[in-house]
Amino acid sequence: MKICIINGPNLNLLGKREPEIYGSQTFKDYLKKLQGKYANIEVSYFQSNIEGELIDRLHEVGFSYDGIILNAGAYTHTSIGLGDAVKGIKTPVVEVHVSNIMAREDFRHISYISPNAKGCIFGFGLEGYDLAIESLLK
Amino acid sequence: MKICIINGPNLNLLGKREPEIYGSQTFKDYLKKLQGKYANIEVSYFQSNIEGELIDRLHEVGFSYDGIILNAGAYTHTSIGLGDAVKGIKTPVVEVHVSNIMAREDFRHISYISPNAKGCIFGFGLEGYDLAIESLLK
Amino acid sequence: MKICIINGPNLNLLGKREPEIYGSQTFKDYLKKLQGKYANIEVSYFQSNIEGELIDRLHEVGFSYDGIILNAGAYTHTSIGLGDAVKGIKTPVVEVHVSNIMAREDFRHISYISPNAKGCIFGFGLEGYDLAIESLLK
Amino acid sequence: MKICIINGPNLNLLGKREPEIYGSQTFKDYLKKLQGKYANIEVSYFQSNIEGELIDRLHEVGFSYDGIILNAGAYTHTSIGLGDAVKGIKTPVVEVHVSNIMAREDFRHISYISPNAKGCIFGFGLEGYDLAIESLLK
Amino acid sequence: MKICIINGPNLNLLGKREPEIYGSQTFKDYLKKLQGKYANIEVSYFQSNIEGELIDRLHEVGFSYDGIILNAGAYTHTSIGLGDAVKGIKTPVVEVHVSNIMAREDFRHISYISPNAKGCIFGFGLEGYDLAIESLLK
Amino acid sequence: MKICIINGPNLNLLGKREPEIYGSQTFKDYLKKLQGKYANIEVSYFQSNIEGELIDRLHEVGFSYDGIILNAGAYTHTSIGLGDAVKGIKTPVVEVHVSNIMAREDFRHISYISPNAKGCIFGFGLEGYDLAIESLLK
Amino acid sequence: MKICIINGPNLNLLGKREPEIYGSQTFKDYLKKLQGKYANIEVSYFQSNIEGELIDRLHEVGFSYDGIILNAGAYTHTSIGLGDAVKGIKTPVVEVHVSNIMAREDFRHISYISPNAKGCIFGFGLEGYDLAIESLLK
Amino acid sequence: MKICIINGPNLNLLGKREPEIYGSQTFKDYLKKLQGKYANIEVSYFQSNIEGELIDRLHEVGFSYDGIILNAGAYTHTSIGLGDAVKGIKTPVVEVHVSNIMAREDFRHISYISPNAKGCIFGFGLEGYDLAIESLLK
Amino acid sequence: MKICIINGPNLNLLGKREPEIYGSQTFKDYLKKLQGKYANIEVSYFQSNIEGELIDRLHEVGFSYDGIILNAGAYTHTSIGLGDAVKGIKTPVVEVHVSNIMAREDFRHISYISPNAKGCIFGFGLEGYDLAIESLLK
Amino acid sequence: MKICIINGPNLNLLGKREPEIYGSQTFKDYLKKLQGKYANIEVSYFQSNIEGELIDRLHEVGFSYDGIILNAGAYTHTSIGLGDAVKGIKTPVVEVHVSNIMAREDFRHISYISPNAKGCIFGFGLEGYDLAIESLLK
Amino acid sequence: MKICIINGPNLNLLGKREPEIYGSQTFKDYLKKLQGKYANIEVSYFQSNIEGELIDRLHEVGFSYDGIILNAGAYTHTSIGLGDAVKGIKTPVVEVHVSNIMAREDFRHISYISPNAKGCIFGFGLEGYDLAIESLLK
Amino acid sequence: MKICIINGPNLNLLGKREPEIYGSQTFKDYLKKLQGKYANIEVSYFQSNIEGELIDRLHEVGFSYDGIILNAGAYTHTSIGLGDAVKGIKTPVVEVHVSNIMAREDFRHISYISPNAKGCIFGFGLEGYDLAIESLLK
Repeated sequence: MKICIINGPNLNLLGKREPEIYGSQTFKDYLKKLQGKYANIEVSYFQSNIEGELIDRLHEVGFSYDGIILNAGAYTHTSIGLGDAVKGIKTPVVEVHVSNIMAREDFRHISYISPNAKGCIFGFGLEGYDLAIESLLK
Repeated sequence: MKICIINGPNLNLLGKREPEIYGSQTFKDYLKKLQGKYANIEVSYFQSNIEGELIDRLHEVGFSYDGIILNAGAYTHTSIGLGDAVKGIKTPVVEVHVSNIMAREDFRHISYISPNAKGCIFGFGLEGYDLAIESLLK
Repeated sequence: MKICIINGPNLNLLGKREPEIYGSQTFKDYLKKLQGKYANIEVSYFQSNIEGELIDRLHEVGFSYDGIILNAGAYTHTSIGLGDAVKGIKTPVVEVHVSNIMAREDFRHISYISPNAKGCIFGFGLEGYDLAIESLLK
Repeated sequence: MKICIINGPNLNLLGKREPEIYGSQTFKDYLKKLQGKYANIEVSYFQSNIEGELIDRLHEVGFSYDGIILNAGAYTHTSIGLGDAVKGIKTPVVEVHVSNIMAREDFRHISYISPNAKGCIFGFGLEGYDLAIESLLK
Repeated sequence: MKICIINGPNLNLLGKREPEIYGSQTFKDYLKKLQGKYANIEVSYFQSNIEGELIDRLHEVGFSYDGIILNAGAYTHTSIGLGDAVKGIKTPVVEVHVSNIMAREDFRHISYISPNAKGCIFGFGLEGYDLAIESLLK
Repeated sequence: MKICIINGPNLNLLGKREPEIYGSQTFKDYLKKLQGKYANIEVSYFQSNIEGELIDRLHEVGFSYDGIILNAGAYTHTSIGLGDAVKGIKTPVVEVHVSNIMAREDFRHISYISPNAKGCIFGFGLEGYDLAIESLLK
Repeated sequence: MKICIINGPNLNLLGKREPEIYGSQTFKDYLKKLQGKYANIEVSYFQSNIEGELIDRLHEVGFSYDGIILNAGAYTHTSIGLGDAVKGIKTPVVEVHVSNIMAREDFRHISYISPNAKGCIFGFGLEGYDLAIESLLK
Repeated sequence: MKICIINGPNLNLLGKREPEIYGSQTFKDYLKKLQGKYANIEVSYFQSNIEGELIDRLHEVGFSYDGIILNAGAYTHTSIGLGDAVKGIKTPVVEVHVSNIMAREDFRHISYISPNAKGCIFGFGLEGYDLAIESLLK
Repeated sequence: MKICIINGPNLNLLGKREPEIYGSQTFKDYLKKLQGKYANIEVSYFQSNIEGELIDRLHEVGFSYDGIILNAGAYTHTSIGLGDAVKGIKTPVVEVHVSNIMAREDFRHISYISPNAKGCIFGFGLEGYDLAIESLLK
Repeated sequence: MKICIINGPNLNLLGKREPEIYGSQTFKDYLKKLQGKYANIEVSYFQSNIEGELIDRLHEVGFSYDGIILNAGAYTHTSIGLGDAVKGIKTPVVEVHVSNIMAREDFRHISYISPNAKGCIFGFGLEGYDLAIESLLK
Repeated sequence: MKICIINGPNLNLLGKREPEIYGSQTFKDYLKKLQGKYANIEVSYFQSNIEGELIDRLHEVGFSYDGIILNAGAYTHTSIGLGDAVKGIKTPVVEVHVSNIMAREDFRHISYISPNAKGCIFGFGLEGYDLAIESLLK
Repeated sequence: MKICIINGPNLNLLGKREPEIYGSQTFKDYLKKLQGKYANIEVSYFQSNIEGELIDRLHEVGFSYDGIILNAGAYTHTSIGLGDAVKGIKTPVVEVHVSNIMAREDFRHISYISPNAKGCIFGFGLEGYDLAIESLLK
């Protein structure tokens, strides 16, 4: 079983940005634990701040992988192109957000990913990725 | 550990409404399996079509339970009162929807629950309740 | 043949509220005449000011009756839950309003019942219920 | 007693347009049946695709007839002029739509006829015209 | 000097519609007085309830007359075509409304004529036509 | 003289919810003081989280009492039915809110109660009920 | 007969502002001609850039004069207070604008004066004041 | 104890404007009674139709008085500057409106004063000022 | 093969309106060239300023012709009836506009024709009709 | 003569995505045919999912080529930057969309490309590119 | 060289209002330093809380000074009259705001000054005035 | 001291695009002068048309530089991701626009950069960059 985690803009700052609040754990640190926990699954990872590279990666893995976990960051709210890509591929996509986007600014309440996603998990911090893998295993 | 699942309007129709599509499994059937899986947790259940009774129940369990899983159904989109109740109590609330409300009509994209919830799980069918328990266990 | 008339909030005030305008005839008085006219049909009646009780009643009669006449009063304009209930049951529902809601305040121009109803009859006073029975007989 | 049925744009296509769905019965066929049923009433008929001709006809019959049944078709949603005409004449007007306009596109939820009509009957197919005559007889 | 007065929908009802309010003077009666007052000017008149006939008439007089007084009635608020016609011709157009459209329903506050008119005169009753001739004489 | 205080959803949490902020005084404690101060008036009390029960109570006291003080809580902003009830009864209603709803979220700036109330008192904490009695005494 | 012309903000710049476009005639120059033409009428004049002074003047002349011609300039579109003043006085007010406000920016399409004015004259340049006097004489 | 009552535009017309409706009592008459009733408090008064003078007065009394009662009239709905002034001073401000602004035109439902006021009292006529003093005494 | 070109309001002014800009070529001149170029196709033509006549013509040719080229002019943006007609007929319709409606006023960005058309060609001047024939030939 | 076809996001999926619907022909297959048909023109091609690379390419070809055919895919509806680029270059740009964007979701009705394009061709499938070349040849 | 700094409502409170946050430096203190720094320029100053007085001053200095620095305070967001004044005068105007108005409430994102200003400087505190002088010197 | 100037989409066209209007000076030419003027500061430069590369660069310099001057071009109005990046880094960012974005199309009045920037400088042409350095030096 192959799962790809795709992270969008600014998520590479994790661990560096306001460490007193967000902690000094980077996403890659967290990823290692996750890969340890789900040792029998191939969990790959991709991050980019470039919208089109996220689309490219969805195309690459979207016809052969068993699941995609997508946190499109700020592109969630503006990228019709990412939404179209999720719709155009075959692999099911679970949408994850670390914070609860529904509890933030109005412009974060719109998601072009959600209507095309298998399901949505918002607001559980990094644990959301773990829950997303659980949901794909079911 | 005590968790209460609270379901809102029309969710009592499950198993009766269009069984060829939704299956003939009622929520109570599903609940039994869930209680079996999490045998060491006390998982209680409440359903009502009456908005105020849902608020009443949130008040009753919201200062002593360890977690609440709330699927407020259609009241999600119109009930400021339920949102206030979730905000006013102490127990963390996980918001669940069986379907992906973000992929349905515009008036279902608004949630008065989400801004006050610990996290949101949308679109995974009945499995969403299971994921919600997982999230409360973490 | 079994038909259920379901009336929503404030319709119980009929005959008591501004009798010089609305007359002193209560809905129950009118109902008797209607039942007299359609003696070969079973015409039952339910009224409640509680949104959830209206949903409950729709569930109870909505899988066995031949027709429902629903005047949801003010809940017409705000209750997504009632609209979902009308959609979820099998019995056809005719929506009736005593006044012409399209000729009143803007917030009364929205109906969550209409999109799921068999048809709509607005503005004919109490005679609208009679027309609704006619429509169900056809 | 004299009643005039006035039909607006595209209603002349009935019976020709997608007959496998709408049937091959034209409005004139239906009209004959209706005239047969209400033999003691004079039921005249007018159809035009031209907005101003509909206004003209409302003016002609609107001071002497006992009732008008108006299905303004698509002009319902855009013609302030038709609404003004209905308001300016003396004969009561019943608004009929074959389909349930409240269940269709958003731009069909607005009616400039309704605020000036005696009552509204939507969604009962051609039977709506029959109900409209009933309502005028009462 | 040649001036054409063009009246739109429902203005032919003047004198017939609610005479106790609007008086029993028809527009043609008023026109005669106006033609008497401005005996040295050729004041012609056209009325139609058909939007396209109003456009036709604008085309006919719009390259040779010295002034047009246009009361487009309800088409004022919806007819982009009339606005385009006013823009496309050479004769200056003065927009007149008998009532003060700015003091009526919201949908009457929009005018597709105004942006292309020489000037606007609203709310002075039939005297507005007289003022419009004055304005064209200046 | 008989006055009824009617409180809506979540107001029963007073004294229990965040006592370090709101204090540990419940509404019933406050009510006793109020009843003591206005000993010559009959001040009754009703609270419910159920919209329809609030409507029921308005109907019950609304034709015989001298004044009603209504804090409809969150239903203020969504309940057309409560607004209709206030309009349909005879007893004057004073609208009270403990907090200043005009200074909170946008969705709390709409009130279906206000247009039908005798007057509004917002933002004075529990003292607002006292001021409301004062206003009814005048 | 006494008429007061009241001009609002920036109209004092006339003759000074872009004279190659607007000409070098000031409003006071024009006023003299107007007073000459209507020698048997007392035509007084007031201009202020201060909203409240315009309200003050409306109060002063609004119970004894025979007519007021008000060009409220930019306050037209924002001053509810001026609109209230026009409504509160007894003298009829004719609203004039030198340019056609309906043909300019969207925010100039709103007028708080119009709903309370006797009539509106827009877009005829300074001649609009002359037409306004004509309208008051009729 | 020193309280200042500040009234905005058009409130000086009280007693003069439609006396058959509003009565012939001016605000100054009413003020005298109020000053009589609260003889041990210094109740001063200021009225202006000029927005900036109202701001000036708020600055003058807003750092030394014990309470301000502000009825900003029509400026309530448009003056961000008055709202900023209320926020910038130290004396608590009670907002009063003689009529119930929530029951009037839509543009009167917005208040730039309310979010910065201690509390709001709408719709009790002149008695609202009395209630406001009561509220400041508590 | 039979193709019908249908032009809406004001397109008859071509060649007459601002010839220094639009040239002195009328649509009929252009049509002749087009008919010469596509000599083996029957290219008929219809123009009207009357909305209902355009609907009539669509009905007449819409069940037997091979293609329709529709430039509905200003009715494009307001005529739900024309849109319904395009939907109701069988012949494919290509929507043409001489100017690029997407680059003009906001109210020209809405088209009731487009959702029912085979395709859209905007902004190529009269050449758009030629391209439309090309598209129908493919 | 040199023409560049520029395709935006997800158009690289053509032939791979839902081949049973869209066919198994890739854009490159189609391009070859097109290049064969227009053998005397240099037709180059560029596709990218990255918004900025599309802008880069427009800059590169936009001062020397004779024509650009741009299908910006989903960026059409959100990219002000692409619109600015089209405006900033000298080569005329024809906007093409395979589907009729006017007949799809609301958010696809906005185009930042159109106002700056020479013309628009929507809804003719891949044939739209052929028509675009035709339009550039004229 | 002559520059005039014009400050609008509430800016006179600087140094008095919340000195622990804004400091106890008044604008006049700051002005002295500024005048010291730019000793070879005549820097005059005007402040008023009255919108019309700000317009008056713009008129007075707007045809002879070399530059105006305008901080219109809250009037920025509502005063079309101030915007018109800036447009009507000849001296270039630089718009300054002490705080970043784009980062505050939505109603502060609108500026009627900006479209007519030479440039805008927001958010640099009192230093913004210094930068504005720099910009005028260039 | 280290400052980085970051320019977004289409700003690389400067000097090439419409040189008769914008001049033939490229940004790099201007940059040299600027670096000459501020010889004791390290002023680096980055331009990209790719949104994500701008985010990348903000991350790279945003924790070590002393100031960033960001002209995000068209991404200003749509890129929540760039706004998040500005918020997430430590170096203060000054937002610059060559033209006055507040005086252009409505869609350019929104900025996702502004709420997170130290300050904004709009409309001073290339001099805006110079003023921005001044502001960072203060």
